[in-house]
Amino acid sequence: MEIEVTQEKLSRALNNVSRIAIGRVTLPVLNNVLIRVDKKKVSLTTTNLDMAVIDFLPTSNSKDGTVTVPAKLLADFVSNLPKGETIKISASDTKVTISAGRYSSTINGALADDFPELPELDEKKAATFKINIDDFKAGVSEVIIASSNDLTRPALTGVFFNTYDNTLAIAATDGYRLAEKKLISGVESEIKAIVPSSSLQEVLRSLSDDVEEIEISFTEDLVRFRLGEVEIISKLIDASYPDYLKLIPKENDSKITLNREELSRVTKLAALFARSVGGSIVCETKLPDTFSVKSIANEFGENASDIETKVEKESKTRLNSRFLIDALNALEEKDILFEFSDGVKPIVLRNKKSDKYVHIIMPLNS
Amino acid sequence: MEIEVTQEKLSRALNNVSRIAIGRVTLPVLNNVLIRVDKKKVSLTTTNLDMAVIDFLPTSNSKDGTVTVPAKLLADFVSNLPKGETIKISASDTKVTISAGRYSSTINGALADDFPELPELDEKKAATFKINIDDFKAGVSEVIIASSNDLTRPALTGVFFNTYDNTLAIAATDGYRLAEKKLISGVESEIKAIVPSSSLQEVLRSLSDDVEEIEISFTEDLVRFRLGEVEIISKLIDASYPDYLKLIPKENDSKITLNREELSRVTKLAALFARSVGGSIVCETKLPDTFSVKSIANEFGENASDIETKVEKESKTRLNSRFLIDALNALEEKDILFEFSDGVKPIVLRNKKSDKYVHIIMPLNS
Repeated sequence: MEIEVTQEKLSRALNNVSRIAIGRVTLPVLNNVLIRVDKKKVSLTTTNLDMAVIDFLPTSNSKDGTVTVPAKLLADFVSNLPKGETIKISASDTKVTISAGRYSSTINGALADDFPELPELDEKKAATFKINIDDFKAGVSEVIIASSNDLTRPALTGVFFNTYDNTLAIAATDGYRLAEKKLISGVESEIKAIVPSSSLQEVLRSLSDDVEEIEISFTEDLVRFRLGEVEIISKLIDASYPDYLKLIPKENDSKITLNREELSRVTKLAALFARSVGGSIVCETKLPDTFSVKSIANEFGENASDIETKVEKESKTRLNSRFLIDALNALEEKDILFEFSDGVKPIVLRNKKSDKYVHIIMPLNS
Repeated sequence: MEIEVTQEKLSRALNNVSRIAIGRVTLPVLNNVLIRVDKKKVSLTTTNLDMAVIDFLPTSNSKDGTVTVPAKLLADFVSNLPKGETIKISASDTKVTISAGRYSSTINGALADDFPELPELDEKKAATFKINIDDFKAGVSEVIIASSNDLTRPALTGVFFNTYDNTLAIAATDGYRLAEKKLISGVESEIKAIVPSSSLQEVLRSLSDDVEEIEISFTEDLVRFRLGEVEIISKLIDASYPDYLKLIPKENDSKITLNREELSRVTKLAALFARSVGGSIVCETKLPDTFSVKSIANEFGENASDIETKVEKESKTRLNSRFLIDALNALEEKDILFEFSDGVKPIVLRNKKSDKYVHIIMPLNS
């Protein structure tokens, strides 16, 4: 095995793949990166068993072969070499020599046979979508915040990719809030797949500025994200997703328009005083034109702010201020719609103009 | 008590003082900021019993009085208010009302009587120095890295301010390395004072761009740093400092000139392979023109790099790579002097041209 590549390209690829190859004591080979040259095609692969990151390196000189080396050590070594140098990596058995100009080192590697590779995706059975990278990034970021960390409910620890009405939508919920974004319309294939949030976060981290489009392929148990020279393959979560569309209320008593920045500010102010009551704040409409956000008086003190807006019906609800702040960060327009009722009906938040994103928050019992 | 001040000024002052007012459960009043208006002069004070930070606020409208309020809550509240607003704080007993335009809140404060203020510095007995802010910042940053965290040796947890030969020097050592910087010459007063490193770090964090000079006053047991509208008062460490000048060797066998960036690079490369041996690396001169840095072969592999430089004598030493990297970051010139001997003599590092800074590292036993 032998490759020659510039410091910049190699360093970037190693930093990308080495993120998931850390801290495994029980199966140390997972700390390694698999360097493979197959018919002159060079790839760097790491895996944490749930997902794999593969970076295809464009190189001119190479000799076929495979080896694995501690990923973090190699990444740190290469990142400390001078920019502009050509780096040569060659392996004889498990001794890996890295040289660049006057610098040379020997790293103890391991045979590639022990490296647990993920299964390949079956291209013939795959349903594939292409999405503009900015739409993908915004959509996933706006939805993933509502996913859960609770490993006892595995379905909720992922983001649900879901087609209906010829639209590909993504959704996430932790049981207390739910976010859905419609990603692409005019879709023919049918997809119901739960992608682990951790894998999606790795995809978001791997996005670089020079990639304009992401290709996503689903089979029954795998998903592959292709972004430029990087491929991320992840197992899907094998569980059934709740019928979340039922949870979005069709109607609510109060439906008001609010300036997003203003609502965000008053929510943050009220939240400061709500720390000792689990972040609970009260939102209330008063005829003819007042929306108020307030904290409940407690050991810290109390806070109330009013926003002027057109009100048609008086309603009152209690909710977790942190969830409202998250939702407002995910919404993007200047003005938003805030819909709520007295009692247990979920609160619905949307952008005023676009209907592609919806965020709902369960009220707290008062 | 009543004050009126712009959001920007108040927010900046509160962020500055609130850093040290956190996380005290046993004496909760230490989480508070003391707001004092005395003859129209407004000050915000926090303390952690070892030091106090006082910010004098320039305000137009005010009424005398005192109160204390949770510092972090007030800082967070004010930082969320719109920029450009005038903020009014008024206290009636322990109820503190903060209002700005349409925003208003009541924070539960506490009486100022319970606030533990540090003693005032006796101006008559104080020795005072003025130092250019950039010189001070550079000097303290270059020295403080060598101070210790070991609370069983209190003297070493501080930076020693020390006059000799009409020069004010600062020094720090943790027993394994030592750094000294000469700050100002032509000094008449005599000072031997150990300032806690934690207090100096707070001074460094409080430096703002609009301050050009720092005034430092010492009495027997206190030091006061004045930077613009901020005063930081700290107790001194009551201990005797080791006679550190004795520790700096007058002569060493090998004395070579090295490019600082190049030495830093090869040290970092060797350090990657030295993790399993406590960071230990070997530096060696070979006639006529080679300086080499290498790690000892171990489970990770091995690494050696050569730098070309004029060598007059062959020597070899082992040292902790982390200490060498710290020292190289503290040095500032393009070329540095690296002096060392076989055996137990300390390694000495200096800038090639300026002799104001010296850094010594104890070798490891081989």
